[in-house]
Amino acid sequence: MPEIINDLSKLCVHTQTNRPWNLDQCITNYSEAGIHAISIWRHLLEGSSLSHVKSQLTAHNMEVVSLVRGGFFASPEKLTRELAIEDNLKAIDQAAAIGAPLLVLVCGSDPDQSLEVSRDQIRDGILKIIPYAKNAGIKLAIEPLHPMYAADRSAIISMGQANVLVEQINDQSLGVAVDLFHLWWDPDLESEIKRCGGEGNLFAFHVCDWNVPLQDMLNDRGLMGDGCIDVKQIRGWVEEAGFKGYREVEVFSDKYWAMDQIEYLERIKYAYLNYT
Amino acid sequence: MPEIINDLSKLCVHTQTNRPWNLDQCITNYSEAGIHAISIWRHLLEGSSLSHVKSQLTAHNMEVVSLVRGGFFASPEKLTRELAIEDNLKAIDQAAAIGAPLLVLVCGSDPDQSLEVSRDQIRDGILKIIPYAKNAGIKLAIEPLHPMYAADRSAIISMGQANVLVEQINDQSLGVAVDLFHLWWDPDLESEIKRCGGEGNLFAFHVCDWNVPLQDMLNDRGLMGDGCIDVKQIRGWVEEAGFKGYREVEVFSDKYWAMDQIEYLERIKYAYLNYT
Repeated sequence: MPEIINDLSKLCVHTQTNRPWNLDQCITNYSEAGIHAISIWRHLLEGSSLSHVKSQLTAHNMEVVSLVRGGFFASPEKLTRELAIEDNLKAIDQAAAIGAPLLVLVCGSDPDQSLEVSRDQIRDGILKIIPYAKNAGIKLAIEPLHPMYAADRSAIISMGQANVLVEQINDQSLGVAVDLFHLWWDPDLESEIKRCGGEGNLFAFHVCDWNVPLQDMLNDRGLMGDGCIDVKQIRGWVEEAGFKGYREVEVFSDKYWAMDQIEYLERIKYAYLNYT
Repeated sequence: MPEIINDLSKLCVHTQTNRPWNLDQCITNYSEAGIHAISIWRHLLEGSSLSHVKSQLTAHNMEVVSLVRGGFFASPEKLTRELAIEDNLKAIDQAAAIGAPLLVLVCGSDPDQSLEVSRDQIRDGILKIIPYAKNAGIKLAIEPLHPMYAADRSAIISMGQANVLVEQINDQSLGVAVDLFHLWWDPDLESEIKRCGGEGNLFAFHVCDWNVPLQDMLNDRGLMGDGCIDVKQIRGWVEEAGFKGYREVEVFSDKYWAMDQIEYLERIKYAYLNYT
């Protein structure tokens, strides 16, 4: 078991966790709650000037851990793939502008082609954006998703697959984001986390829980302690693998989104301190 | 690609595919539709005498491919595990009484313990029922489920895990049921199917499709051709692995259950002949 968590210094919250809030509300309320790290979902940047966002973050002493999300490289249509590359370059620019060191990649999948073809396109797409990311000083993290999203969201569905791809590409800009919701079931998780950390490729750690029964494939995630994932055990593996970064709370939940979000933020802190 | 399917001689339908029907209706309507193989879900046996069921099957020249389902061996409670064993022995008796050669096992999982503990209990449970099954002349097939059911339905979530367990136990009574819905996403599927067949352990083949988007984790399966699974490719692997048994249509679908079931049965036959 890893060391007990005594304070909020390594707590990061994803803006999507508090979906009812706009970006200003997230920054202000996290800061007032003693949380000083944020991962920002890109749709919240629409309609804001990035320099305003940057100054808001600075004014509230808020570190940006990652920008979420790029990727979606897979498509049978060449034009769609090209537009995805453009969008990833834009995301890299956004990350640089707001001071986010990392762009999380949900790599994509398309039901009209095989997973193997999608994985080839993912590799090609990542290779195309790496030079731009390096130039901007932005790192990229492949987030393997749960196999229940294999058809349409990510053809990369395990740490093993992410490790293989990252090792093949072999560029210091590219690593992996470990997300408990997606990966907890994998019998190879411990060894693949340690392989990833050992290679210096473990870039991010997303925490939440798997509710039982799961009411919805997308928006019924639990807070740590709500469900069946042994969060502490997996945090232990991640830290034994050398990871020293933030623990990012990423919870999509119709139930929690319906709550008063200030009260919910207190619950997040409680779950972070007691069940992470 | 495997040989084209020209007739219905290897088509089997699971009664749950036509959930609105009782067992008599399934037997009668399958027979009238030219389908002469059935896999029977156990709840349909409640309230019927097994000898009546057997005579109905015989009268309609209906072969029983499997009884569905035993298993559910995993629990932190000893009493619950003992009751599961009893229930599996009852299922074996039922299978023998109606002439079903195979009992399908959904092995179980419990969110209050680790998947490793559940897998140990699954192995123990199977070891306890094998002698009884052998004595009754009934085979057992582990059905690995999709990882999205790992928390509460099956700690066995891949062909690889099922193969390891079956090879460890190493008894001719025990094999694996391959179900497309659960396994299509697995990058090791082809090799693990061939390993399974090569060891003589491939006992059953369940077909359906994965709808995109999937509207419901349980009851939004597609008919073959509706979704993203390359059914013919995987049937090819199964047959290259030496499997010569029935192709069992197992579709849980609120959409199809709302249809006229006679019309639906014609759709099933069309999907079987054209997309399987």
